[in-house]
Amino acid sequence: MKPELHVFKIGGGIIDNESDLMEFVRLFAKINGPKILVHGGGKGASEMMKSLGIAPRMVNGRRITDAATLDLVTMFYAGKTNKQIVVALQSHGVNALGLSGADGNVIQATKRPVREIDYGFVGDLSEASVNTNLIQQFLTLGLTPVFCPINHDGQGQLLNTNADTIAASVAKALSRQYAVALHFCFEKRGVLTDINDENSVISTINLANYAELKESGVIADGMLPKLENAFEALQFGVEKVIIEHALHINDPLKTTLCLT
Amino acid sequence: MKPELHVFKIGGGIIDNESDLMEFVRLFAKINGPKILVHGGGKGASEMMKSLGIAPRMVNGRRITDAATLDLVTMFYAGKTNKQIVVALQSHGVNALGLSGADGNVIQATKRPVREIDYGFVGDLSEASVNTNLIQQFLTLGLTPVFCPINHDGQGQLLNTNADTIAASVAKALSRQYAVALHFCFEKRGVLTDINDENSVISTINLANYAELKESGVIADGMLPKLENAFEALQFGVEKVIIEHALHINDPLKTTLCLT
Repeated sequence: MKPELHVFKIGGGIIDNESDLMEFVRLFAKINGPKILVHGGGKGASEMMKSLGIAPRMVNGRRITDAATLDLVTMFYAGKTNKQIVVALQSHGVNALGLSGADGNVIQATKRPVREIDYGFVGDLSEASVNTNLIQQFLTLGLTPVFCPINHDGQGQLLNTNADTIAASVAKALSRQYAVALHFCFEKRGVLTDINDENSVISTINLANYAELKESGVIADGMLPKLENAFEALQFGVEKVIIEHALHINDPLKTTLCLT
Repeated sequence: MKPELHVFKIGGGIIDNESDLMEFVRLFAKINGPKILVHGGGKGASEMMKSLGIAPRMVNGRRITDAATLDLVTMFYAGKTNKQIVVALQSHGVNALGLSGADGNVIQATKRPVREIDYGFVGDLSEASVNTNLIQQFLTLGLTPVFCPINHDGQGQLLNTNADTIAASVAKALSRQYAVALHFCFEKRGVLTDINDENSVISTINLANYAELKESGVIADGMLPKLENAFEALQFGVEKVIIEHALHINDPLKTTLCLT
């Protein structure tokens, strides 16, 4: 039997509200056994850019990570947000270790190739990106890795990577050694059949009812790429994917994704 | 025989000039065996504060680390500078691991007590501050720890600590397991007998000629606390302390401090 490993991802909605973030940290600290946290960005970096008079660069409605943006998100995600979470976890007795992909070369990304759009300093991940061995060593030392969404290309260039992608890649890479539960936390209690009804959480989605839910339009928009990612992770060997509210990770009300 | 360990400290003068910093990184990467880098701040954080309209708080000519300053220096030192160094070291094949004291709880500080002046969020170190065991584990894994001057108190509070102090504390703590050479790098080739003559480097200072050099006034001002710190480290068990130019760490011209 593989040992259990919990990989959590939290996004901007929780990070932007300090008391919510601290409440999540308190709950996350209580989870027993090896665990990993991946955090995204938040509005803070954009707000700071505004204050500094740096305009966000947009192409076809997509945000471009130019050099000035990369500089600022690195400061914000790897400096402020990452350390804020690490120091709070330490105060709850969790031996957190903040990491960008460059630290210990734990995640190496490839700059997204320029096709129709040049996204700038954005890093894509492949199966070989995650340094499974070193992450496992950290876990064995009793450390809880806390990843910010900044990676590197091994050639001296930092790159910004979507936090969902990092969480899924880390979960997949570690699924050979661990029975991985991948938790996507956000501001809803799971996948809802009715967006206006917080209690309409679908408790289990497997490949069969996923197809139905897509067809009927219950699952649409932003939830689609999340779930595609999730099923890919399951097919790769991740034991289960859970979609849940960041402030209710202990409650039974949540959506669990599995293959069958 | 204890294995050798090199602990380097670089300060603002090198960090503020990107090409100098990259040259230092190139030289540091060539040093064989286990090594540790401690970096200070630089002018970048102050300049950013100015751009954001945050005035530095001064009391009796001393800079105070208030909450807004701490926030900004954390972003700058732990985010920008630390990752800039780590990613550059990685590109030179050094498996650097960026750390604040909060990461892995490697350094725990105590908020400086308020006496005549309240320095704000400044952390002092004691002999028990450094988590020697975990740093040794990192070194055994082939990692090169890169410390930024941000620590924590274990209660959820980040604290700003002088980088010279961190370097000396880390060197002292590891001197039981390693033959530690502590390198203070700056923009001179060592301790000079004539401040205007770059070649007037004193090659060796021991406790006997240190007393003479102090008395004659050759060593004064800013160099005094540095050397006091250095001799304290030697008395604690650090093998040697070297004061040298950050861009000439391979050259023989430098000041070596030893007890006798």
